[in-house]
Parts: sequence; C-alpha cells; structure tokens
Amino acid sequence: MTYCIAASIDEGLVLVSDSRTNAGIDNVSTYGKMHAFDTSDDRTLILLSAGNLATTQAVLEQVHRDRVKGAEINLNTVDCLSSAAHYLGQVSLEKQQQHKNPAGQSAFDSSASFILAGQIGEDDHGAYMIYAEGNSITTSTHTPFLQIGETKYGKPILDRFLTPHTSLDEAAMCCLVSMDSTIRSNAGVGAPIELLIYRKDSFSLGEYYCFQDDDPYMLDLRHSWEEQLKEAFSCLPALDKSDAHPLKAKL
Amino acid sequence: MTYCIAASIDEGLVLVSDSRTNAGIDNVSTYGKMHAFDTSDDRTLILLSAGNLATTQAVLEQVHRDRVKGAEINLNTVDCLSSAAHYLGQVSLEKQQQHKNPAGQSAFDSSASFILAGQIGEDDHGAYMIYAEGNSITTSTHTPFLQIGETKYGKPILDRFLTPHTSLDEAAMCCLVSMDSTIRSNAGVGAPIELLIYRKDSFSLGEYYCFQDDDPYMLDLRHSWEEQLKEAFSCLPALDKSDAHPLKAKL
Repeated sequence: MTYCIAASIDEGLVLVSDSRTNAGIDNVSTYGKMHAFDTSDDRTLILLSAGNLATTQAVLEQVHRDRVKGAEINLNTVDCLSSAAHYLGQVSLEKQQQHKNPAGQSAFDSSASFILAGQIGEDDHGAYMIYAEGNSITTSTHTPFLQIGETKYGKPILDRFLTPHTSLDEAAMCCLVSMDSTIRSNAGVGAPIELLIYRKDSFSLGEYYCFQDDDPYMLDLRHSWEEQLKEAFSCLPALDKSDAHPLKAKL
Repeated sequence: MTYCIAASIDEGLVLVSDSRTNAGIDNVSTYGKMHAFDTSDDRTLILLSAGNLATTQAVLEQVHRDRVKGAEINLNTVDCLSSAAHYLGQVSLEKQQQHKNPAGQSAFDSSASFILAGQIGEDDHGAYMIYAEGNSITTSTHTPFLQIGETKYGKPILDRFLTPHTSLDEAAMCCLVSMDSTIRSNAGVGAPIELLIYRKDSFSLGEYYCFQDDDPYMLDLRHSWEEQLKEAFSCLPALDKSDAHPLKAKL
C-alpha cells in the first residue's frame, strides 16, 4: 500500500509520502515514492507514485530516458504542468499496457497513479493527480490537496483544516498528522516518511525531511497531537440531556 | 452507503448510526439503521445494520417473527450475546442465500453486516460485529469499538481517543465526531444521526438522540471541533529547520 499527499496552497507546495511497498502481507519492502528530476533551471518537478511497483519504476525510467535522450516530448520540453501531467499519463498507460493481453486484460493489477507537483517558468506552482487511466485532475480553491493510495483514513483532517491560506509549515504538520493517522490504521503504510516543502518561485528542493519510524520529531508530533485531541474533546459542547428520549423498540 | 459505530467501554455502550441508503447516486433514501427489540426484561438488544437494504429488512423481519412466534432459537431464548450474534449470522446467511443461484452466485450484492450490542442477564454488556459470512467478532481492551459500512474516514479519531476508560459522554462525542468526519467525506452517509447511550446494567433505552442535518447541537459540535483542531495545530511542535536538507534529484 501507499499514501501520498500534495497540498497546493498560496505559499507553495507541501508533499508527503510513505515508503512501504508490499506484494501480499508477507512481502513488505521499503521504497521511496517521492522522486525529483534533474530538469532545466526554469522548472522544478516532483513525482509521487502509488500502485504497482514495476509499473511506477518503468514509468520513472522512461521519463528519465526521454529527458536524457532528448525525446520530442520530455519533462524539459513541456511548457506547463498540465502538459507534463498529460505526458506522464501517456507513459503510464503505455507501461501498464505492456502487461495486458490483446483483450486489454492483465493477469495482475498493473495499474499505478501519480501526483506531479512543481512549477514551470512563469506559471504558478501546482499539482496534478494522474489516474491509472492516464487522465488527470488538479486542485481547486475548495480542495487544495490531492491524495493517492490509501486516501481515506487521512482525508478528514485535510478536509477540515487545509485551505489555500494555510501557511506552509502548518500545512506540513497537517499532512504529517494525516500520514500518521494512516500509518496507525493501515499496516501497509509506513516509514520512512518524506516531506518536501516547496516555497513558490524558489525553484529549490532545499527543505526536505526524511523521518524514520523512531524519529524524535514524529514521536513528539504524534504524542502532542493525541494530547491536543484529548484537550479538544474536553472543550466540546456537552450533550443536552433534555434532548434525550427513549429509543422505541419497533421489533 | 452506511456508517455505524459501537463503542463498548467500562461504563456501557455508545451506538451511533447514520440514515442514508442509496442504490446508485441517483436513488437516495432515508432509513434508520438502529433497531431495538421488544425483548424480555432481562435483556436489552440493539442491532445496527449495513449493506443491502432488502437483506437487512428481511433479517429484521425474520428475527422479529422468530421471537413473536416463539421459535426454538430467538432473541428471548439465547442465553448470551455471542449466541445472539451466531443466531443473527445464521438468519443473515439464509436471507442472503435466497438471492443466489445454486452455484452460490448472486446477480447483485445481497450482502449485509450487523453490529449487535446490548446486555443479557447477569453477563456484562458487549457488542458483536456480524460479517456477511455469518461469523462474528467482539471488541477487546485494545480495540473497544466496532464499525460497519464506510469505516475508514472515521477510524483514526476512534483509534487515537477511545479506550475502555473513556466516559460514556466523551465516547459519545468521539463517535459523533467520527460520524461527522465521515459525512463530510462520503456523500453516501447522512443525517439523521441516531445516538444511543446505554449505561451498563440499566436495561434501559432511555438516552437516545436523533439529530437532523441542521440540528443546532451537531452544528455546534462540528464548529467547536474545527476551532479546537485549529488550536491543536497551533500547539504542535514546530519542524526543526536544521533537520532539513535538499532533496536530491535522482532522475
């Protein structure tokens, strides 16, 4: 399993990913899912990957080769993020297709999904989620984040807290709490946790963190969050007992 | 879709359920999923239901008839909660089976799952989750809650907060927040929200609440929770910027 988040907010981008890969519960490995490309100076592009590991590795390899060999379309020639997302979708489809028979069926699930985030030239920074089908969506003011992999456990905290006006550091903590919730609830998601904070127009990958399982900061964050939640519950409005009435047995 | 929770804690039981049923996104109805039975005075039994509505209705009807007609095994004759859960599992299997062909295949998903909670005689109160396959599990000290339906969005808050020592009122608020998170994230889960607080050894269904979509308490709870979360984020330990290093572009 996998869990990756990209928050695209006013100040820039926050990207968080886990590193656990499994083919069955008894075949668990560690692979980073945050990939940066050595592109031209006018662009910064990061890819988060989920799904079949063979497919995601094949896609990364192809995208790398296209750029190095100067293919007509590659990460250095696309002129905007949406074109980059379209290109990645096509490469992904091609790699998935290689494991299907002529009827379009695969003996296994070769699908993969991606989040491409970054900034190209004078365009604003942004993020695109690329579905296994090759098409893609971006964020909006109302939904300033994208998720791939095991998305449900960690979504409520993003829904409740993340807005375009959230600061980069607060968004980073929100995404880390979302990741921590997912790790607690799904054994297929695990450390090391990678975090990249991209400040808009910086074209720099300088603020990157990699937290191991026993990282003091992550332990501190989890402990503090749970303490804060207890505090939060104690401040919630009490039930009005006068609203209570008996549940009628109908059966 | 559906979301139901049962917390079985030292002081008693907290049961929460939504009321939205849908057969496709364009066929949405309102059906309560919390059902109480008019059993003997020595027992209190409540059933939460999820899955195919025809199946859950057929199960409820059969369980009701078995009791009224005095079948050999019915909710008044079973001597403990686990036997009641086993009986319900058998009725559920029988009703699901009616829509399958001899090869055991169904033209549609007729499966259903249940949570049976309550107290019988001098036994402790408790809760059982009955799978579509008819077997069942109960809670433990480490996992004092059960969920059916759309379980993922609302699980982290239960994982982090609920213990056997949580008070009934705090557990009720925790389950309501879990429900509210799920409603926000899945349009297939919706009001009215039913809440039953069962105090152990009371054999009473007296503390029951039914919250409509615009219920002032639920609106207040949601608003307070979101304010508390903002407060919580502002108290989390800040990232140690000296831990940051550049993300190396490997591709």
